[in-house]
Amino acid sequence: MLKVQMITPAEVVANWSPHLEAAFEEAGVTAKLGTDFDPEEVDYVIYAPGGGSADLSGYVNTKAVLGLWAGVESIIKNETLTQPYARMVDEGLTEGMVEWVTGHVLRHHLGMDAHITGRAGWDHSPPPLARHRKVGILGLGVLGSASAQALARLNFAVAGWSRSPKALPEVACFHGDAGLAQVLEQSEILVLLLPSTPETENTLNAETLARMPEGAVILNPGRGALIDDDALLAALDRGQVGHATLDTFRVEPLPEDHPFWAHPHVTVTPHIASETRPETASTVVAENISRVEARQPLLHEVDKSRGY
Amino acid sequence: MLKVQMITPAEVVANWSPHLEAAFEEAGVTAKLGTDFDPEEVDYVIYAPGGGSADLSGYVNTKAVLGLWAGVESIIKNETLTQPYARMVDEGLTEGMVEWVTGHVLRHHLGMDAHITGRAGWDHSPPPLARHRKVGILGLGVLGSASAQALARLNFAVAGWSRSPKALPEVACFHGDAGLAQVLEQSEILVLLLPSTPETENTLNAETLARMPEGAVILNPGRGALIDDDALLAALDRGQVGHATLDTFRVEPLPEDHPFWAHPHVTVTPHIASETRPETASTVVAENISRVEARQPLLHEVDKSRGY
Ligand SMILES: NC(=O)c1ccc[n+]([C@@H]2O[C@H](COP(=O)([O-])OP(=O)(O)OC[C@H]3O[C@@H](n4cnc5c(N)ncnc54)[C@H](OP(=O)(O)O)[C@@H]3O)[C@@H](O)[C@H]2O)c1
Ligand SMILES: NC(=O)c1ccc[n+]([C@@H]2O[C@H](COP(=O)([O-])OP(=O)(O)OC[C@H]3O[C@@H](n4cnc5c(N)ncnc54)[C@H](OP(=O)(O)O)[C@@H]3O)[C@@H](O)[C@H]2O)c1
Repeated sequence: MLKVQMITPAEVVANWSPHLEAAFEEAGVTAKLGTDFDPEEVDYVIYAPGGGSADLSGYVNTKAVLGLWAGVESIIKNETLTQPYARMVDEGLTEGMVEWVTGHVLRHHLGMDAHITGRAGWDHSPPPLARHRKVGILGLGVLGSASAQALARLNFAVAGWSRSPKALPEVACFHGDAGLAQVLEQSEILVLLLPSTPETENTLNAETLARMPEGAVILNPGRGALIDDDALLAALDRGQVGHATLDTFRVEPLPEDHPFWAHPHVTVTPHIASETRPETASTVVAENISRVEARQPLLHEVDKSRGY
Repeated sequence: MLKVQMITPAEVVANWSPHLEAAFEEAGVTAKLGTDFDPEEVDYVIYAPGGGSADLSGYVNTKAVLGLWAGVESIIKNETLTQPYARMVDEGLTEGMVEWVTGHVLRHHLGMDAHITGRAGWDHSPPPLARHRKVGILGLGVLGSASAQALARLNFAVAGWSRSPKALPEVACFHGDAGLAQVLEQSEILVLLLPSTPETENTLNAETLARMPEGAVILNPGRGALIDDDALLAALDRGQVGHATLDTFRVEPLPEDHPFWAHPHVTVTPHIASETRPETASTVVAENISRVEARQPLLHEVDKSRGY
């Protein structure tokens, strides 16, 4: 009987336990979920930030720490994490992100806001076709590449950027500093799906924003730290950036007095672009435990030196 | 040298002629475009409503009338039209419609309006996944089936309805009166892509609207006459219909005093869902002429008895 410790907020324990137990049974994993096992006896930790002590140094026999969220910037800074760490990669999470990105790209592409607010009236000018609309995606990981391909299937002209070279059908792939400049220069709509690391902080700053086409639209479902907020506000005020639709922020909830709330060219969504869903994600946790037990490599393991 | 008469508004003659001439050359069609050939000498008519006399009775030697728009409800009522009539079916037109439909379905699915207007604030509740969202499409012709499949590729649970039985991958297909009731009962978001005919007039009326789930969303990029406006307004006021996003109207431009303009749960888009684009559509015209000259059947011929 494996011992699986949940170090998560209490409501996660409540909401997830039945799904996790069902998934363990389905996967043939014989395990007991708990919250106060003796650390030395724990086989696996299930982790979400905000639930009690994150000191993992006592978990000397733990084979892996299994994260429930996709982002890893806080746990990765935890120096007591010496065990292998798997982040959450889950179909439902990917689907949700693809829907948010596709929806907001189409919204800006079609110029919907002017009709939604009634501002446009009977102003009869159809938008160009998607095949003439250039969209850039920074980050071609699980979420960025799924979003890029969904947009390409809708005929958008998609360019993407990652750290290492990539090849994706129907997506022009770039990497490295020169690649970033090329993607920025052509993107009428730019989507940020990079992780938050020391290297990616302020990827959009005064200099990089200035490379974008006048009036470009920024979508940030990635992480708040990817953007220099003051530089973005200045670019919005000059019209260099036409609109920013932001789902992630340096401080969340976004403070009530933050200028993003009142800015006419900023849309705030409250970190809802995508969520891990216990129904589908519990299966991923169970599968990972069963793999490690069978001495297969852990899936979605985070590279601590890279930071994602 | 074929004689091709343009019976269209003057700006269509101006905008389309260069594209048509290029397409004729490309297709090896030797033809001369004109606007005042003697009707008896005309081989083909290119037609768009609003351009001079629509009396086609003198065109006794004309092999086909080639329409530039997708809708046919006005020309089909013209009793002097005895020649075969081809309506416009064009890649660009289909792409534009798929983009409008996909964009507005995602907009309502994601509940974007509350964020765009700022009403939602930091209200942290992500929408369900598309795979749990039921979308219905009335009309599974060129535009309805392309839209249905684009939505199915985004994982929406799509049901469609047509006159004759149909089969489409990933789309539950219904037809006939009983089929209509089934599609209406399950559609959280309903898209109208039927043509305007005597049979389809007021497809959405007090009785059919009452069959829909409470708070359902209606998208009408089809034709204004598909909806009984008063019944829709009453259903909106009771909350039976949550929102209507309308691109087509019984009278266009939509009169300034029409209640749709001011209604808080109606979005008006000014008949921009999709447009015929001369660049791509001219090729379709040239191809059709070259087919008829080669004694192949006319493409996209309208069945006058059916009315579409
Ligand atoms: N808003 C929400 O609701 C929500 C939900 C889930 C996730 N997220 C965010 O979305 C982010 C992306 O998720 P994911 O699952 O797609 O991550 P992932 O699979 O780890 O992909 C990260 C991508 O970013 C690229 N990258 C990393 N550092 C880079 C650098 N310095 N320069 C250039 N490219 C760099 C990686 O390049 P390589 O391919 O070369 O490694 C990879 O393509 C997460 O980190 C999280 O912050 C947000
Ligand atoms: N808003 C815009 O910008 C815009 C642009 C272009 C077109 N449109 C509109 O979109 C409409 C659809 O275009 P399309 O090219 O897809 O037309 P289409 O190929 O002729 O398809 C019409 C569909 O409606 C179905 N239908 C017709 N009468 C019916 C009835 N009485 N009961 C049930 N189903 C019926 C047909 O059934 P079967 O398959 O059984 O024949 C077919 O599936 C056009 O007629 C036009 O009004 C709007």
